[in-house]
Amino acid sequence: MFAEIITIGDEILIGQVVDSNSAWLGRAFNAAGITVRQITTVGDAPLDLKNALDQASGRAEVVIMTGGLGPTKDDRTKQALCDYFGGKLIVDNEVLEHVRTIFSRLKRPMLDSNLRQAEVPDNCTVLFNKEGTAPGMWFQREGRIYVSLPGVPYEMKALMTEQVLPRLAEYFRDQLTHILHRTLVTAGIGESHLAELIAHIENALPAHIHLAYLPRPGMVRLRLSTYGIRKEAEPEAELDEYVSRIHDLLGEYVLATEDLPVPAIVLSRLKERGETLATAESCTGGYLAHLLTSIAGASDVFAGSVVAYANHVKSGILGVQELTLQQFGAVSLETVREMATGARGKMGTDYAIAVSGIMGPGGGTPEKPVGTVWIAVAGKGQLQTEMFSFSGKRPQLIERTAITALGMLFRFLR
Amino acid sequence: MFAEIITIGDEILIGQVVDSNSAWLGRAFNAAGITVRQITTVGDAPLDLKNALDQASGRAEVVIMTGGLGPTKDDRTKQALCDYFGGKLIVDNEVLEHVRTIFSRLKRPMLDSNLRQAEVPDNCTVLFNKEGTAPGMWFQREGRIYVSLPGVPYEMKALMTEQVLPRLAEYFRDQLTHILHRTLVTAGIGESHLAELIAHIENALPAHIHLAYLPRPGMVRLRLSTYGIRKEAEPEAELDEYVSRIHDLLGEYVLATEDLPVPAIVLSRLKERGETLATAESCTGGYLAHLLTSIAGASDVFAGSVVAYANHVKSGILGVQELTLQQFGAVSLETVREMATGARGKMGTDYAIAVSGIMGPGGGTPEKPVGTVWIAVAGKGQLQTEMFSFSGKRPQLIERTAITALGMLFRFLR
Repeated sequence: MFAEIITIGDEILIGQVVDSNSAWLGRAFNAAGITVRQITTVGDAPLDLKNALDQASGRAEVVIMTGGLGPTKDDRTKQALCDYFGGKLIVDNEVLEHVRTIFSRLKRPMLDSNLRQAEVPDNCTVLFNKEGTAPGMWFQREGRIYVSLPGVPYEMKALMTEQVLPRLAEYFRDQLTHILHRTLVTAGIGESHLAELIAHIENALPAHIHLAYLPRPGMVRLRLSTYGIRKEAEPEAELDEYVSRIHDLLGEYVLATEDLPVPAIVLSRLKERGETLATAESCTGGYLAHLLTSIAGASDVFAGSVVAYANHVKSGILGVQELTLQQFGAVSLETVREMATGARGKMGTDYAIAVSGIMGPGGGTPEKPVGTVWIAVAGKGQLQTEMFSFSGKRPQLIERTAITALGMLFRFLR
Repeated sequence: MFAEIITIGDEILIGQVVDSNSAWLGRAFNAAGITVRQITTVGDAPLDLKNALDQASGRAEVVIMTGGLGPTKDDRTKQALCDYFGGKLIVDNEVLEHVRTIFSRLKRPMLDSNLRQAEVPDNCTVLFNKEGTAPGMWFQREGRIYVSLPGVPYEMKALMTEQVLPRLAEYFRDQLTHILHRTLVTAGIGESHLAELIAHIENALPAHIHLAYLPRPGMVRLRLSTYGIRKEAEPEAELDEYVSRIHDLLGEYVLATEDLPVPAIVLSRLKERGETLATAESCTGGYLAHLLTSIAGASDVFAGSVVAYANHVKSGILGVQELTLQQFGAVSLETVREMATGARGKMGTDYAIAVSGIMGPGGGTPEKPVGTVWIAVAGKGQLQTEMFSFSGKRPQLIERTAITALGMLFRFLR
């Protein structure tokens, strides 16, 4: 059983917006036992949308469209859907009432374009959008389901979770097979070496189990999947057996055996132990703190970070000695060591991570080229420092440094 | 003249990876005068790739594929390309030598899978990848160009910039029309009110100029584009005239008349004035500092940030009085005011921004529900504070708070 995703918007095609909805939809469909076969992005031209709908109809039972709705875009997409499914636009009174309520609560005048958001094709089921003004629309034709959703991520997600997925489970209840994924999160080892270590397991996998390598800066996720196996065959046990064999082989490189973000893994380990963390960041410029505080509940563990971008902040707030900075430079073992102990002392935590490095494009020297990074972890009478030579551009270097630092803390905790 | 993008990888379809390459490619093609017609994502199954190639060939003169290469994936994609274009795999000696050099420099043993990366179809032009091991491949058939590139972003970008785009400009030199975009970055006004303010301009636009609204948390970009006009017609002046009329109408809501990230706009304004900035962050947890330090050269302006997630860090490092925290709470006018003046004093900068709020999902109360945010800007004897009630989930709230804070500073500077 297949689904396809069609995202609509010139802004995606010209690259002004990154389509992050599709990744979320991919995860949601998979969890529901539906395989996403293809993702297609088309512009705002109605003809391109109709062609994409035709082609998706030939491959999938479910087609989800996102985007192309909203006060300034509505008309074209809704008219295209009317033409495609043979309906005409009528005003939905419940939606109209809802749009009115939103505007009166915001104490903002309601515009014509907002009123038109209450118009829907007369041959769809309206999916009421309590998070925003553009409603979802559910069409049925020749055994296939087509759903149009707004492109605003949290509105789309709420409609999917609360309305679309339950309706799909009901509509296709006899056809859903089971898709299972297990993920091992690894850090500190490259993709090809991982592959070499587990080659004998990979080569002996049965045909219905597939192994994928998902590298990201500083980490590789390994994903084992079974496809097309019905729930009754209990594929969970078989998959778990492979996970545990790979885990045994890779040992300390494995941070988790479920698909969690690295900061969530580190925070939950510290929370179990009742311990706290602070960071002192130069080259990551707050990204390490941002990764940690993106996780709800981070405040149980994470006290804060001093983003010491300028040297006078390293000395003034973290207490790094002026002499250390002069003698060894900001990117050195000595400086990150003092940053880590300073951050731990100033913020009164059990552990602290400190990072300092050269992220480019400028600032590199022959002795310390762009990509040179020092990381220190301090805690409970111990201090560990390590130097790394990373490659990549500024955004990758920041990402890689932050993930590597969290991986170092994870191993330090053992 | 059209291009299409095909991204390859099961990991994108199941949502474990967000496809950010396509947005970059969209921008690169546009700048080169080539319109991206459609973006298609397929899995690792060779048949789906072949079908996508067939369909893209019917719509576009240029088809760029990314992904599906790398030590653990190579075989299937390269074999599919051989089958599709009718070639066979041979070893490319220059690539082999390059892969050998990389491994010897890293002092890592070379594996069979790495050796196979030097294999390429014998009917393609090899695009040498100096950033990594997987080469690009350029195929020509019936006047169309097909290029396969690795999915690692910085490798893909280097190959596009240095090899693919110059070759395309040469190959299609008589057919390229001109695409022009102008962007106004606005903050502090919603999409439908923007639309209302400029409706009379939008309604009178000539057919070859298109206006798009690109909302993001805390900001809306307005994009004016001309399509299909040859360079000789000089569409620049006409477009600039519209930009200036819209700018006059929207006044202080406009942060910039070119498509720059908001932090880059703020940093460059401060740099022009020779002034410096610090931040004190509670609810944004380092994201504000991360946005600023993502911009190369931020260190000329940005001294650092105190991410005071725990209250004892607000008082201990920023000097917020215990009494203030007790009496008014961490999310209050009084607290952000002391955070801003504390950050400015401790880090010795001309300006400081402080933010404190409730990002959820927990922590809301009837008086201060999730989405309540206080922002203060301090500088040169002035202090401005404002309360906001944002809606959305944690990631949107963090984004919206950070962008709103930068917009507040921008207006404060006037």
